[in-house]
Amino acid sequence: MDFIFDWNRAARTGLPEAVLCSAKSTEQITEILAAARARGARLLLTRLEPAGFAALDAAARAGLDYDPLSRTAVLGGKVALADAQVAVVAAGTSDLPVAREAVQTLAFSGQGALLVADVGVAGLWRLMERIEDIRVCRVVIAVAGMEGALFSVLGGLVSAPVIAVPTSVGYGVAEGGRAALTSALASCAPGVVAVNIDNGFGAACAALKMLAMAAPSRGEP
Amino acid sequence: MDFIFDWNRAARTGLPEAVLCSAKSTEQITEILAAARARGARLLLTRLEPAGFAALDAAARAGLDYDPLSRTAVLGGKVALADAQVAVVAAGTSDLPVAREAVQTLAFSGQGALLVADVGVAGLWRLMERIEDIRVCRVVIAVAGMEGALFSVLGGLVSAPVIAVPTSVGYGVAEGGRAALTSALASCAPGVVAVNIDNGFGAACAALKMLAMAAPSRGEP
Amino acid sequence: MDFIFDWNRAARTGLPEAVLCSAKSTEQITEILAAARARGARLLLTRLEPAGFAALDAAARAGLDYDPLSRTAVLGGKVALADAQVAVVAAGTSDLPVAREAVQTLAFSGQGALLVADVGVAGLWRLMERIEDIRVCRVVIAVAGMEGALFSVLGGLVSAPVIAVPTSVGYGVAEGGRAALTSALASCAPGVVAVNIDNGFGAACAALKMLAMAAPSRGEP
Amino acid sequence: MDFIFDWNRAARTGLPEAVLCSAKSTEQITEILAAARARGARLLLTRLEPAGFAALDAAARAGLDYDPLSRTAVLGGKVALADAQVAVVAAGTSDLPVAREAVQTLAFSGQGALLVADVGVAGLWRLMERIEDIRVCRVVIAVAGMEGALFSVLGGLVSAPVIAVPTSVGYGVAEGGRAALTSALASCAPGVVAVNIDNGFGAACAALKMLAMAAPSRGEP
Amino acid sequence: MDFIFDWNRAARTGLPEAVLCSAKSTEQITEILAAARARGARLLLTRLEPAGFAALDAAARAGLDYDPLSRTAVLGGKVALADAQVAVVAAGTSDLPVAREAVQTLAFSGQGALLVADVGVAGLWRLMERIEDIRVCRVVIAVAGMEGALFSVLGGLVSAPVIAVPTSVGYGVAEGGRAALTSALASCAPGVVAVNIDNGFGAACAALKMLAMAAPSRGEP
Amino acid sequence: MDFIFDWNRAARTGLPEAVLCSAKSTEQITEILAAARARGARLLLTRLEPAGFAALDAAARAGLDYDPLSRTAVLGGKVALADAQVAVVAAGTSDLPVAREAVQTLAFSGQGALLVADVGVAGLWRLMERIEDIRVCRVVIAVAGMEGALFSVLGGLVSAPVIAVPTSVGYGVAEGGRAALTSALASCAPGVVAVNIDNGFGAACAALKMLAMAAPSRGEP
Amino acid sequence: MDFIFDWNRAARTGLPEAVLCSAKSTEQITEILAAARARGARLLLTRLEPAGFAALDAAARAGLDYDPLSRTAVLGGKVALADAQVAVVAAGTSDLPVAREAVQTLAFSGQGALLVADVGVAGLWRLMERIEDIRVCRVVIAVAGMEGALFSVLGGLVSAPVIAVPTSVGYGVAEGGRAALTSALASCAPGVVAVNIDNGFGAACAALKMLAMAAPSRGEP
Amino acid sequence: MDFIFDWNRAARTGLPEAVLCSAKSTEQITEILAAARARGARLLLTRLEPAGFAALDAAARAGLDYDPLSRTAVLGGKVALADAQVAVVAAGTSDLPVAREAVQTLAFSGQGALLVADVGVAGLWRLMERIEDIRVCRVVIAVAGMEGALFSVLGGLVSAPVIAVPTSVGYGVAEGGRAALTSALASCAPGVVAVNIDNGFGAACAALKMLAMAAPSRGEP
Repeated sequence: MDFIFDWNRAARTGLPEAVLCSAKSTEQITEILAAARARGARLLLTRLEPAGFAALDAAARAGLDYDPLSRTAVLGGKVALADAQVAVVAAGTSDLPVAREAVQTLAFSGQGALLVADVGVAGLWRLMERIEDIRVCRVVIAVAGMEGALFSVLGGLVSAPVIAVPTSVGYGVAEGGRAALTSALASCAPGVVAVNIDNGFGAACAALKMLAMAAPSRGEP
Repeated sequence: MDFIFDWNRAARTGLPEAVLCSAKSTEQITEILAAARARGARLLLTRLEPAGFAALDAAARAGLDYDPLSRTAVLGGKVALADAQVAVVAAGTSDLPVAREAVQTLAFSGQGALLVADVGVAGLWRLMERIEDIRVCRVVIAVAGMEGALFSVLGGLVSAPVIAVPTSVGYGVAEGGRAALTSALASCAPGVVAVNIDNGFGAACAALKMLAMAAPSRGEP
Repeated sequence: MDFIFDWNRAARTGLPEAVLCSAKSTEQITEILAAARARGARLLLTRLEPAGFAALDAAARAGLDYDPLSRTAVLGGKVALADAQVAVVAAGTSDLPVAREAVQTLAFSGQGALLVADVGVAGLWRLMERIEDIRVCRVVIAVAGMEGALFSVLGGLVSAPVIAVPTSVGYGVAEGGRAALTSALASCAPGVVAVNIDNGFGAACAALKMLAMAAPSRGEP
Repeated sequence: MDFIFDWNRAARTGLPEAVLCSAKSTEQITEILAAARARGARLLLTRLEPAGFAALDAAARAGLDYDPLSRTAVLGGKVALADAQVAVVAAGTSDLPVAREAVQTLAFSGQGALLVADVGVAGLWRLMERIEDIRVCRVVIAVAGMEGALFSVLGGLVSAPVIAVPTSVGYGVAEGGRAALTSALASCAPGVVAVNIDNGFGAACAALKMLAMAAPSRGEP
Repeated sequence: MDFIFDWNRAARTGLPEAVLCSAKSTEQITEILAAARARGARLLLTRLEPAGFAALDAAARAGLDYDPLSRTAVLGGKVALADAQVAVVAAGTSDLPVAREAVQTLAFSGQGALLVADVGVAGLWRLMERIEDIRVCRVVIAVAGMEGALFSVLGGLVSAPVIAVPTSVGYGVAEGGRAALTSALASCAPGVVAVNIDNGFGAACAALKMLAMAAPSRGEP
Repeated sequence: MDFIFDWNRAARTGLPEAVLCSAKSTEQITEILAAARARGARLLLTRLEPAGFAALDAAARAGLDYDPLSRTAVLGGKVALADAQVAVVAAGTSDLPVAREAVQTLAFSGQGALLVADVGVAGLWRLMERIEDIRVCRVVIAVAGMEGALFSVLGGLVSAPVIAVPTSVGYGVAEGGRAALTSALASCAPGVVAVNIDNGFGAACAALKMLAMAAPSRGEP
Repeated sequence: MDFIFDWNRAARTGLPEAVLCSAKSTEQITEILAAARARGARLLLTRLEPAGFAALDAAARAGLDYDPLSRTAVLGGKVALADAQVAVVAAGTSDLPVAREAVQTLAFSGQGALLVADVGVAGLWRLMERIEDIRVCRVVIAVAGMEGALFSVLGGLVSAPVIAVPTSVGYGVAEGGRAALTSALASCAPGVVAVNIDNGFGAACAALKMLAMAAPSRGEP
Repeated sequence: MDFIFDWNRAARTGLPEAVLCSAKSTEQITEILAAARARGARLLLTRLEPAGFAALDAAARAGLDYDPLSRTAVLGGKVALADAQVAVVAAGTSDLPVAREAVQTLAFSGQGALLVADVGVAGLWRLMERIEDIRVCRVVIAVAGMEGALFSVLGGLVSAPVIAVPTSVGYGVAEGGRAALTSALASCAPGVVAVNIDNGFGAACAALKMLAMAAPSRGEP
């Protein structure tokens, strides 16, 4: 039995139009930017290293807003931000690039975020001093490397969904982020979900999907 | 600086009170059930194998509603179900026990679920025949073993958050569920999140958290 | 019991004479090229990085046709191409170097190829728009990194043999290509076969063997 | 842009209709057999252990042809076999169950096979005594556990495509078949392709696809 | 240069004389017990499963004090216990067998222990209710499976050395205890040390060594 | 039930205030140093590569005592050292950087250390010549890469607690330090504990905790 | 160029004719024994579990000399033993089955062996008491599980070749024998070689080859 | 019981005095060379990269015989070589550095070697053309990367002990040499032994030990 399928609906997911730059050449990125400009599209570039950004010529960099910490760039200007409904909680200073990639992705889509940094569980009191601020958010993105204990501690303290982003910060058995990833998946706190290592962009996309399902307009398909 | 912390709020997460039975003795489960009855609590038991259920005496089994497929049991009776807002999509027949654990966990908390089975991507048309039903749900739980390609395909077709539950179904390189787990985490479709292998309960808890954040009452802390 | 064995037949496999350059010095490659020229042989060089090609002197580079995208070079000139009987299908832009290595290997042996790019399963409709073109080919080489869901989707849609080439494109759990490789091997679509990570050359060799077995002359040993 | 897609063509792949029994209950297998009988379909059952076969009642077993070595069963009778175009080459006695699963799958589809057993490379002369018989086949399925050296040796000796089936035969570092699988993928002989560990069925399906592409009728789509 | 070495000192480490029974036959254990009785030695048996204990005859079991939860047995009677200087902290009920193996090993050597159970970090307040009791101990043995977040949280809250004992409790990525072990080693809390998975005996031995170094008599070598 | 918790006690662990520099920028390290100077704090910097030290400007380097072998730096001057109570035993010359990181960490806190180098077990007599010196120490830190056999040999020869520090020295199966780590954890000598690979700092912190528990003042909480 | 190859020489390696029984059925073993009797051959059976031996009927067991500890059986009677030239050194009681498999394999070929047991490195003095006996042997087979430190210690103490046989004795990180295997390969003592986990048979074969090369007659091929 | 042990005998193993340079600084190597010159010792340096050799000053390089292919250097001059008793057999050109490290180590100790290169099993006839030359050697060192099938093939063809040296040559699943190592250990040819990846030095040491045991003088202990 043949049937007609509305492929176009698949394109209407509301996620940011984004380009992962890490495996692309300067030429390819330049072309993509030109094409986006031609159709007036806003665009989020991720994993664009400072050297990669510097390699772009003036025309390609025109109107590109680059953030070296998160290695993201935005074409097409910022949008007004809604009040923060997402808390982005980072265990250590070294986790900030990934945390900020999530913040930038949310901002690209108009969502503000509360960034809470340096609250690793070895100093539990620092987390406790900020926990009430975190609790009023609708979604929590937790960013941690090393052993990733933050995921379980947060999962037990807040009622919002917790999206764990393990980072590749660490050495020895923690090198590459597998230790933190495993902690996220094996968490004794139910309701914690995980994305790939260092994937701040993906965590923000998941948060955007959750916020969209909560929006009033979602009810009428 | 000392300060007062409201630990009790931490207990108010709205997740089901549940007991993982796989590592507990018959005596321990009997005691837990008695304690729950004494305080009039409803209780969800997970990973209670048929042999484990059979080993309970009549007093322990009184009022216990056991589902052998999902290996779950409910103490304290069912509650009325809201219309299905969660789609539980299983790739193959062998993934049904895990899928049903998710359905049972949702039902314990009063959430109906749409169970869509046998829609693995090797026969893509079967998934396509059901995709419109899946799309109207607010959250999608995808359950798959083997290579877990279903997660990415679904992630590209629906706008709702997709919670991937890899299962331990498979042999050779897929034995134990690592292949499917890796596919969930490495998915090229942004916004897919993952829980541990065979963790239907955890996926349902995450879905409950997402639905709770979307509920109107959530707005007033 | 001793017996005579016709070793020479072993040399008549019809596969391209090729040199893997990645572990060879400039001196060694120069010698190999000189030897090939001396006996008038055509030669395919693989994994020859641009820096490696640039390090060759003019004599060594004489008549060498270098393709930087696939890092291949051909000595001895191109041959006329038969109509495309092999579809080379790449999930993303980053998979193109490997896909093109397969195309160049086929071309070296006189086989045309249909290259279909950027059809990852997160945007299933892009694959569907090209699927009829792919279906008329006798062999399909599928090239994908990340989670490698393309292998299973293609395996369920075409009747031709599908040779999966996992690529090392990806990060976190997908780094190095193991995730895509596992997906190829664990595929729920029967009849999918796999080669090593990034081995576009090997996939093309397998395709050439399959085409040779289908050729009319193959019947008379 | 919406469009119409002929899903039904996807069902016309010519592969055997098969059921993997290892993760299915007696009740499920009984139902599947009844359904197949009702629509007059032939059916191949794989990974049906002797105990699982014995657990079926007389009605379910009626007309079922069971082969305990390969743990396969056929419903609907045998078909006439074409002359062997596929060589199934097994390194050791312990690899025979997997080799025979391939033979049975081919036979279900009417393809004869040449089974060559006990030709592991530690006794290379045994392989050499049979190599001419193997060479006249159009496709070679190589089945080996332990270190899987057979795959490379065969790949260098025959011009036909070689489908490697690593088996879980082995202990220590070879336990579970990963060692043999890795040897297949890393083979220094170009043109060797691999399927999952112990997947004799999948190898036969790939061989059937290769034979189908070689058939004269394939030319007219 | 030859020299004389006092091997006997090596035997004077003060650790309990213990026998790991898991890989020994009933005959071997019987012989060992008889030999210990003959020389009037006290002996600790570990990993003696209930079935293994039941298999011993009456003579072998005479005077043997068996604890089924920890699977330990003591020959030669108990000794008076010093006040608890070691806290044994277990995350969940399923970790109790390993925790109790540590307690039994300490008791065999005359050291009391404070056992604190069911204080996993998903319910942080339960740990906080007991933390002052834990803090007065000189050594802390932390026992946890799953993701092992307890190790880091405890390491940040107490000044005593923390010996982490990962347990094999868990499923999916946590199966076998590697996830908890990795968390112990990658802990962001400095001063946490680890022993092998499920090695309650070894943790207790390390604690005994630490207590011995602190004892007044230790000063005079 | 709410309650008051004395978070401040958690800060009183007596461990050195330290900064892991490997994942921090020159700017961040400069800021941290300035802040420490502002509040008159002593500070230990670890994993500060020579290039990283050289990148600091004169103001940042003022009063900074840098040790290139261990890649540590001390701000705030040295303190008088107590007699060595800790033996730091290194298997080979290549293990010296990690061993010295432990020595520097101890020295920062005023603890002297006995450094015994080049006593790998392949030349057992070298270890035996130094064993009596090692035995009079209260704690032993053993540092070894390759196969890490030193841990077990030392564990059987001394009565003090042995803290094993596996190093990433080695190649092939020993690359990255996993082989040595596994040997530490699987040691047949009871009472050996382990820290992460190359974690000389953590081993020293554990030793400091052990020495603190043994100090007379520890008795009065 | 074709040429004649003397395959029969390959059969003259002098190694015992042996059958690995673990993956063979009772029927297959019975057939193999009958065939060996028919041609008057001596035969060594390895990995024949007691249950497998008991399953053989009286005819099959006639003249079969079974050793339950090593799970070996000999058909065709014992031969006179030469003085021990091989030392088989086992770390613990649990390593004895593997050690004895080596002893039985040597005995089958007429080589005596010196079995030295229970000399693990945690009690180094026990090894030292036997080291002179070991040193007079021409080849040393070292058998150890857990962390396998024995291999390196022996490698540094004897001038004979040391063949390391890691065993699967151990738990946690040592489970399955990988820890001991890695220690053998990463040994800091040059000249240590390794065989597969639990492969006492293979170690004995290697020893036989070494003794054969040392024999006077070896010089004249 | 104390006793006297002749440690000095342990030093008389006859293996070359060698220095692994990969983890040593220019200063350390310079010191070691000076010390060796001072006591008139010959010395073998391994893993001395060309850049490392170039970094030595003229005094340090005086009399140092450097071989860039194998990255070895000899201090103290060459010795006369005995006729080749060891065959060093390399599968591919890329395996030559490791093979030559073995040859240089043998030569340092006065042993000649027969180097047979480029005989990988994908072209079995090339190995067969050299097999008689290999067979007359007393020991065979086999050097191979990729899938390491050469080890098993050689093990079945020669009666001499075969020492397998897996190399890190390969990509994808073969990257780093684990695939070849596993093939060596899992080899179906009994009597094959293995050393660590890329450890040509260790293989030569093992060969030297074997040759020493065969020497006439060895008989009189």
